[in-house]
Amino acid sequence: MKKIVVSTKSRTEFVDITPLITKELEGHKDGILVAYCPHTTAGLTINEGADPAVKQDILAVLNDVIPWSFNYKHLEGNSPAHIKASIIGSSVTIIVEDGNLQLGTWQRVFFCEFDGPRTRSIWLKLVD
Amino acid sequence: MKKIVVSTKSRTEFVDITPLITKELEGHKDGILVAYCPHTTAGLTINEGADPAVKQDILAVLNDVIPWSFNYKHLEGNSPAHIKASIIGSSVTIIVEDGNLQLGTWQRVFFCEFDGPRTRSIWLKLVD
Amino acid sequence: MKKIVVSTKSRTEFVDITPLITKELEGHKDGILVAYCPHTTAGLTINEGADPAVKQDILAVLNDVIPWSFNYKHLEGNSPAHIKASIIGSSVTIIVEDGNLQLGTWQRVFFCEFDGPRTRSIWLKLVD
Repeated sequence: MKKIVVSTKSRTEFVDITPLITKELEGHKDGILVAYCPHTTAGLTINEGADPAVKQDILAVLNDVIPWSFNYKHLEGNSPAHIKASIIGSSVTIIVEDGNLQLGTWQRVFFCEFDGPRTRSIWLKLVD
Repeated sequence: MKKIVVSTKSRTEFVDITPLITKELEGHKDGILVAYCPHTTAGLTINEGADPAVKQDILAVLNDVIPWSFNYKHLEGNSPAHIKASIIGSSVTIIVEDGNLQLGTWQRVFFCEFDGPRTRSIWLKLVD
Repeated sequence: MKKIVVSTKSRTEFVDITPLITKELEGHKDGILVAYCPHTTAGLTINEGADPAVKQDILAVLNDVIPWSFNYKHLEGNSPAHIKASIIGSSVTIIVEDGNLQLGTWQRVFFCEFDGPRTRSIWLKLVD
């Protein structure tokens, strides 16, 4: 298992971690890569990276649909972040061939911060 | 493949199945564990287990955002459960090292009942 | 890695790709299968296939909850599709035993088109 670290700068933010993942693939050949988020107020997703407006739109709608104010029972004030984490998911699985991450033309892997800013980890495991 | 069984008690409910999964890991060492939900009105998620209010808040918002009343075409009355199942997802993937499930400090694995109460199965497979 | 192709006919649509996946399993025995969507305006989900009204209801609510009109910054007009892709997810993981896909009684694998009609690919990888 390998670990990568990202520092987020906003309360909610998508960080493109594709280059960090690619770097950790060295020496591996074929299989599937699992990128795993060990945090409960963050997640991982795969989406378009070419136009930064896409990640902004995804975040804007999540922040609009999941209410900031609600009859929340959890007293830390970050229930919206926990909810978004379960909707987006705690891991992504990507095929690896000839040592290369098999992403679609427009795809990038994003760490999804929902309760930042914080220093966060992502764990990687390749199974072949 | 191993199977674990849970009995849910409410229409919608999160059940912490982490201890049941851990028990089935015995004898395994390194790899990734897939926990799979074979039901179409339930799912699996990873989120905070320390404060039970977190799972209540996630459920409360899902039950609020996904309408109970809508122009549903499926006549069994459980379309909201099918929708939540696809939003939350049918499986979780977790890294295993030295025979231990690699969860973050606050993470637990939850079976997500959306159309209970019922007796439910979760299937487990470790690939190394 | 194997590739399957589907042609979608509507702007949003669920296509049952279970038979296409099953056909590609030939010769394999045990492990986990990853079905991966390389597109950023589509996804993959597992849900009920017996009553076609279920997939219609899931789509209808997603199309209702994720706004078509919003202060979107992405200028291609398909931000709702990108958002649904991240909510539904880019891959599904399914256990394989004795060469058979281990799905629950009512489960089918659906390609989820959110910005069609288009010709789309799904990539498959089995790890054992």
